[in-house]
Amino acid sequence: MKNSPSKQKVINAASALFFQKGFHGTSVRDIADQASVNVASISYYFNSKQGLLEYAVTNYYEDYLKSIESTLRQSELLTPIEKLQALISTIIQYKQNNFQLTCFIQRELSLDSVFVREMTVTYLAKENFYIRKTFFDAVGSQVKNEYKQYLLMQLKGMLVTPYILHNDWKNQVVGEYSHQIFVKKYVKVIKDWIDFAVFDGLELDKKVAY
Amino acid sequence: MKNSPSKQKVINAASALFFQKGFHGTSVRDIADQASVNVASISYYFNSKQGLLEYAVTNYYEDYLKSIESTLRQSELLTPIEKLQALISTIIQYKQNNFQLTCFIQRELSLDSVFVREMTVTYLAKENFYIRKTFFDAVGSQVKNEYKQYLLMQLKGMLVTPYILHNDWKNQVVGEYSHQIFVKKYVKVIKDWIDFAVFDGLELDKKVAY
Repeated sequence: MKNSPSKQKVINAASALFFQKGFHGTSVRDIADQASVNVASISYYFNSKQGLLEYAVTNYYEDYLKSIESTLRQSELLTPIEKLQALISTIIQYKQNNFQLTCFIQRELSLDSVFVREMTVTYLAKENFYIRKTFFDAVGSQVKNEYKQYLLMQLKGMLVTPYILHNDWKNQVVGEYSHQIFVKKYVKVIKDWIDFAVFDGLELDKKVAY
Repeated sequence: MKNSPSKQKVINAASALFFQKGFHGTSVRDIADQASVNVASISYYFNSKQGLLEYAVTNYYEDYLKSIESTLRQSELLTPIEKLQALISTIIQYKQNNFQLTCFIQRELSLDSVFVREMTVTYLAKENFYIRKTFFDAVGSQVKNEYKQYLLMQLKGMLVTPYILHNDWKNQVVGEYSHQIFVKKYVKVIKDWIDFAVFDGLELDKKVAY
């Protein structure tokens, strides 16, 4: 979806404010001031603050899933592990490019609202399907299902942690780098973990005293 | 800190509501209804909703840090890795015992507010100190500092992920278990990762093309 410049300006301002002060802590007036537009034009574009939120989040996920799908298509000839690595790279890259909105959405998702439930059964179900399938293909069928499930959750955790503990990450690792360098380094750290999960997972699984 | 029964009832009700609807989405009236007390008694105990929040969070962290400190004292004679394992076990146990408040606090911490900044320089700095020191002692000095820092952040991510992606975890892994079984299984998964980080970290680090 391509937005008009002033519509995009409103979305950027809202993303920054939601990120910093939360959805409830931000007023339409704050957004209008930050975007240098009048309140009426926000109503015109999005109806309400809730409408703006839904538009921005929908936009975010549409593009996100498009990137994922295009990566998976382009890596069809790769090995399952390379495919997984390509997927992870795309995900971190996208989240880093949309840093504030990612952090904000991640926080909202932990609430129990109608909107979150709608997201969950649509976009998040699709995201989960892609990550799960690609990861399970890479791990293979020899690791026990229950353990594989934990490893999958661990991977999903790694994909969101920098956007949840972002204050922590900023102070401790990200601070000195540009977004690009961070993406490169962090993707490498996750790849190392995949080597562990895929190649040692089987060994470890044997040791698990379930 | 020991609370009177009705004070505790208010804290429990507030934890459940903050968890479900967020701080801004919860009114003092909601809390009073859920706790079956009148609004006046909430004002009496805590002054305001903000006062209640601060009390509950302070209480949470005081007990949390006490558990951590007592674990570290008790494991002084263990090896650094056993000590780290004991620490992780205590942390997951505590978070699981205070599930709703943990999820809520984790979400709030991603906001940029005066209260969060106060938490960060007090309790969170202390928590970070203990986790960092225990982890670095276990990893040893042979892994490069920058890589060690990423591993530390990865560990910290594992300690919060079930409380951030809690909807996801509930559907995919936790659903069938009691809290106790979950703690046991998840601590095992993290221990496997520690084996990877501590024993393979050095190897991996050599491969890193920074």
